[in-house]
Amino acid sequence: MTITITAFAASPDRGRGLARDMPVRWALEEVGLPYEVRRVSFEDMKEPAHLALQPFGQIPTYEEDELVLFESGAIVLHIAERYPGLLPGDEKARAQAVTWMFAAQATVEPPIFERETAGIPEHDQVWHKQRLSLMDARVENRLAQLSDRLGGHDWLDGEFSAGDLAMIGVLRRLNGTPLLSRHLNLSAYVARGETRPAFKRAFAAQLAVFEARAMDS
Amino acid sequence: MTITITAFAASPDRGRGLARDMPVRWALEEVGLPYEVRRVSFEDMKEPAHLALQPFGQIPTYEEDELVLFESGAIVLHIAERYPGLLPGDEKARAQAVTWMFAAQATVEPPIFERETAGIPEHDQVWHKQRLSLMDARVENRLAQLSDRLGGHDWLDGEFSAGDLAMIGVLRRLNGTPLLSRHLNLSAYVARGETRPAFKRAFAAQLAVFEARAMDS
Repeated sequence: MTITITAFAASPDRGRGLARDMPVRWALEEVGLPYEVRRVSFEDMKEPAHLALQPFGQIPTYEEDELVLFESGAIVLHIAERYPGLLPGDEKARAQAVTWMFAAQATVEPPIFERETAGIPEHDQVWHKQRLSLMDARVENRLAQLSDRLGGHDWLDGEFSAGDLAMIGVLRRLNGTPLLSRHLNLSAYVARGETRPAFKRAFAAQLAVFEARAMDS
Repeated sequence: MTITITAFAASPDRGRGLARDMPVRWALEEVGLPYEVRRVSFEDMKEPAHLALQPFGQIPTYEEDELVLFESGAIVLHIAERYPGLLPGDEKARAQAVTWMFAAQATVEPPIFERETAGIPEHDQVWHKQRLSLMDARVENRLAQLSDRLGGHDWLDGEFSAGDLAMIGVLRRLNGTPLLSRHLNLSAYVARGETRPAFKRAFAAQLAVFEARAMDS
């Protein structure tokens, strides 16, 4: 079985590991599966060949023999369900870990992503600063709730799981901001994820793609 | 086994079936599982008893004997994995249906939800109209891509699945808007979901809660 994923040929995050290939790489590293990467440009992503794999013209895609998947959450779940290391063995505990995967993507990420991306089209608008404070308040609300739940635990629910992988991936978008740093337990939680050997290998691999691109040009 | 979910005692959508208990009700109806509903007020949702079940103070929660879940996507997936009717039998086809569940929540819903909720805090701002056109463009981009992929098919990938349930639940937020109605195949897709007997039972059940509340007050 050969696993091939797609990633940005030139990631707009400049190798900070915020692109959506990162959680997939991290999950593959956690379970010890080798994979290949096909680099796609922004032009490639609009082509019918890519849209056949990913109807929204995004990365990553995941190809495994005849199976084609997209959406990083679905890909991580597929990996986690088939290989040990990312979900508990007990059926109920598994369902709870999956709950955290959905919470990361559906509840915690939207206000964070909105805050991050709003700067691009709105930056020159006179009202951007005013809206930034509304967006910060929405992010802060979610972080305070998450911080309360995490408390002094290492991970969200027992052992490290795909739920933590997803949540840490979302929180990393706030690295270096006071929004995150004022919650000491959340900052420590993110750092705990980032020190996992599998995370480090995944991070280095995506950074290498970005740096190779820089050397090409 | 008794299944208990929580729902708004007084849904802000006034019974239009846009609250997050709706996909859970619909999934339970599709697989034919009976369930009970505990109605919670906005005050209840801030109480420790509710936060212990749902750390973000939202609905729905799902209780099944000792198992407690939250996040409508995770609950629907849990139901779909255990009872026939919402996921194909073939393992690869299942993974693809799950991909559509994540696409609905992580890719299609965020711009739609942002557009819907921005009106509340921003309505009085002079820049709200200007921003509305930016938000409409983001929604339109996603809908055009989804419309292209759906084409003339009845459902996103073969038979009706939890992926369609999730996607139709998201698209229903745009019912009555030109954003949706200009895509004839997406409008027909939503209508196709809404005519399923399980949808109708779920819709009637959540509407009954809203109407009972109106009679109480």
